[in-house]
Amino acid sequence: MANQNLDILFNPKNIALIGASANPSKWGYLILLNILKGNYRGLIHPINPKEKTILGIQCYPTINDIPGSVDVAMITTPAKVVPPLIDECGKKGVPFIIVVTSDFSETGHEGAKLEREVVARAKKYGIRIVGPNTMGIFSAKPTLHALMPPVMPLHGPVSMFSQSGNVGVQMLAWGFDEGVGFEKFVSSGNEGDLNCVDYVEYFGQDKDTKVILAYLEGIDPDIRFKASIKEVSKKKPIFVFKGGRTNVGGKAAASHSGSMAGESRIFKGALRQAGMLEVLTSQALMDCAKTFSHYPLPKGNRIGILTRGGGWGVITADSCEENDLVVPPLPDELIKKYDKILPKYWSRGNPVDMVAAIANDPFLECLEILANWDGIDAILALGAAERGFKFPHDPGVKEPKELVDTLHSILQFIESKKNDRSNTLEGIRSLVDSSGKPIIMVSIGTDASHKSYLEEYGIVSFPTPERAVRVLTQMCNYQKFLNSRE
Amino acid sequence: MANQNLDILFNPKNIALIGASANPSKWGYLILLNILKGNYRGLIHPINPKEKTILGIQCYPTINDIPGSVDVAMITTPAKVVPPLIDECGKKGVPFIIVVTSDFSETGHEGAKLEREVVARAKKYGIRIVGPNTMGIFSAKPTLHALMPPVMPLHGPVSMFSQSGNVGVQMLAWGFDEGVGFEKFVSSGNEGDLNCVDYVEYFGQDKDTKVILAYLEGIDPDIRFKASIKEVSKKKPIFVFKGGRTNVGGKAAASHSGSMAGESRIFKGALRQAGMLEVLTSQALMDCAKTFSHYPLPKGNRIGILTRGGGWGVITADSCEENDLVVPPLPDELIKKYDKILPKYWSRGNPVDMVAAIANDPFLECLEILANWDGIDAILALGAAERGFKFPHDPGVKEPKELVDTLHSILQFIESKKNDRSNTLEGIRSLVDSSGKPIIMVSIGTDASHKSYLEEYGIVSFPTPERAVRVLTQMCNYQKFLNSRE
Repeated sequence: MANQNLDILFNPKNIALIGASANPSKWGYLILLNILKGNYRGLIHPINPKEKTILGIQCYPTINDIPGSVDVAMITTPAKVVPPLIDECGKKGVPFIIVVTSDFSETGHEGAKLEREVVARAKKYGIRIVGPNTMGIFSAKPTLHALMPPVMPLHGPVSMFSQSGNVGVQMLAWGFDEGVGFEKFVSSGNEGDLNCVDYVEYFGQDKDTKVILAYLEGIDPDIRFKASIKEVSKKKPIFVFKGGRTNVGGKAAASHSGSMAGESRIFKGALRQAGMLEVLTSQALMDCAKTFSHYPLPKGNRIGILTRGGGWGVITADSCEENDLVVPPLPDELIKKYDKILPKYWSRGNPVDMVAAIANDPFLECLEILANWDGIDAILALGAAERGFKFPHDPGVKEPKELVDTLHSILQFIESKKNDRSNTLEGIRSLVDSSGKPIIMVSIGTDASHKSYLEEYGIVSFPTPERAVRVLTQMCNYQKFLNSRE
Repeated sequence: MANQNLDILFNPKNIALIGASANPSKWGYLILLNILKGNYRGLIHPINPKEKTILGIQCYPTINDIPGSVDVAMITTPAKVVPPLIDECGKKGVPFIIVVTSDFSETGHEGAKLEREVVARAKKYGIRIVGPNTMGIFSAKPTLHALMPPVMPLHGPVSMFSQSGNVGVQMLAWGFDEGVGFEKFVSSGNEGDLNCVDYVEYFGQDKDTKVILAYLEGIDPDIRFKASIKEVSKKKPIFVFKGGRTNVGGKAAASHSGSMAGESRIFKGALRQAGMLEVLTSQALMDCAKTFSHYPLPKGNRIGILTRGGGWGVITADSCEENDLVVPPLPDELIKKYDKILPKYWSRGNPVDMVAAIANDPFLECLEILANWDGIDAILALGAAERGFKFPHDPGVKEPKELVDTLHSILQFIESKKNDRSNTLEGIRSLVDSSGKPIIMVSIGTDASHKSYLEEYGIVSFPTPERAVRVLTQMCNYQKFLNSRE
């Protein structure tokens, strides 16, 4: 496949920043700051004829003055001086230029003309262009944060290209909250030269990328995006979040990235056939990235549900059925097993409702029975990590001594339970590994613990059963697509 | 309207806990602990013939031994001794009994028979029963946490009844994470006597309740629930989350709360006509509670969108159109106003895309123009509260002195910006009040800040535009229902 040479773009040994500035309210300053603060492993050369150093780093008047070679030049100057700078880069032998500068095709005919001029000059020298009108790139291996906003993503196996810089970088920042790590990212901007085909093919053959995300507003019908999706989807999942699906959204997209309205239905139909996994909300894009990068795919769509509370089991079963997932009945042999360890009023069915119990918690034991049952392909485990006791202390209230003593012993009890919980969480992860089935945890509430379940235990966990079901549906869809290709 | 007398149930001056226990693994202990730790303003009397005190509180052998009157008795004993206890309570003149005990109609014919017996005996004395098989009640005014799990909800104008105790109490706990406060809550259990009609009517006329939530699995077709919904919906919104919507969910509900499968469609159709607001996910229930308890309703469905990033504007516009909300074009007069304060490449349309700018942030000014425009009824404001700079410090990396100095001055800059942000947030809230239009903020990411926006500034904020749109759709639906009643 082509474009293996984007390796240099994402792993440059040295970068020139043309338009570097000593003024903190300029992008040429903030990008340099991000690169430095991100501890970039290569060399960064600010280009500015008026400064000797910026942020302690030696400046050069022009790119030609840099003693060694340059793998990537990044340009933040005004648009009209970009064409001659392309020539300078060409003479220096720079293979990639990231044109951050805006005021090109996104702003009208004049800008479009200038953009064609820039791309044509670059072509003469064999230079490939990212952008123009891009927010930059990120790459985990060289810890390269060549981005306008000061975002420092976590590292992980997810790579993304985005036709909106803002949507892209906010996904990186949001990933930080969710524990979702990124490998490579590019804000593809106006795609004057390098476009979504190049990025999807490159991420497709990149061994460090396991999951591909894309935010798209429009696709040039002449480029072979569908063929690339078809090829890459066989190897790894590609999630596409399409902006401009409706008339009014399409109009907004036209003024934003210049994409064409009304193409949405054709776009979707073709790409779905090719194996693209479409997501319809920003949250779904994040949730899929998280789950697909940590869990094996289910072999089919039969779901086992384990719950501590009947109502949540009902809600989860509804959500499964509404998404064409099957919640099969338990065979007698499993019911007998559960009869031995659960209180007499357990549900005797799937969902397996353990019925609230304070002590002697057989959660992991119940989960193991379900995981080893060959009648299901995936598990939704509700309430594995129960909330701690939350007794806010009101210093204005005098409490009886016995109550204070009791609370003290309860706190000790909770402390001792932490080990149990840790054992449960470790147990769940090893059941994922031994059974090869995804076990998605649901723990109601939006506190920060979901991130720690992922980072400390490798467990995918969501605050609502509906989000867990939605991601499981995507997993089943992708497995079905893979099966159809065999 | 009837059932004003539930006032005593939710505002008891004294409670007897029959089945109180000194054993920390018994519900009769944990409920007492919750009541004490919640700083209940009335008197609580544990009933236990074998103990002199529990948790420092004097015990009585029987309810008859309590010197004063008893407003509410709570029973946690085994099922078979409940009937004679009802007689004891009847002789004492107790008006309400909360039967926590399970093993009644939810477990089969025998249990159902016992439940009928309990209800019949209570009726003889004019006692009203909550449950059986309930997790208890919560009430903000007397700070009464008569609940099995140790949940301490925030106080606010939302009241809820839930046919699943677990779903209900987890909503209370989740509300804590989201800043959503509750006024009254009841886990309605098997609804052997008091049922959803009683609760919806009581909450309907309760002046401290602004928003009603309900989790329902089944409704007895003989009771006049529809009529109650119709009456109460005129005054305040009632959100219903229905469990058992599907065959498999319905089967799970049947084994859980004994509700009938297959009734779901009829149920929904009738209740929608009566003004019920149906939500389809647990997250939507929480989001509606949050928004309706803090914001005025929009007068119509015309939405203004303000954004800092074009892509998010596109995504939001798509989501509006997909939910039948209108995103009207800007009139020339507004375009002229924005031309004066925005960079030349702003979108010149709705969504108003301010285009990324580092300094001189006119966010509030732009929002005010939109809020004062009579062409829209509500606003979605994206990116008002931008993320702070997140530069994780790596102590293993030696940084150039100039970089360290710069970061120091940037941190000072951020500190100075906090005031700006605080001004912006205060400005948004006063625009909500002055314009009477809901301005829902979207701030991408799942960090804890959404709670503080609500608690500190009274601003409703969501981590994704799609969730903001979903709740706005419900607001428009409810306003439309109210208009149709006039």
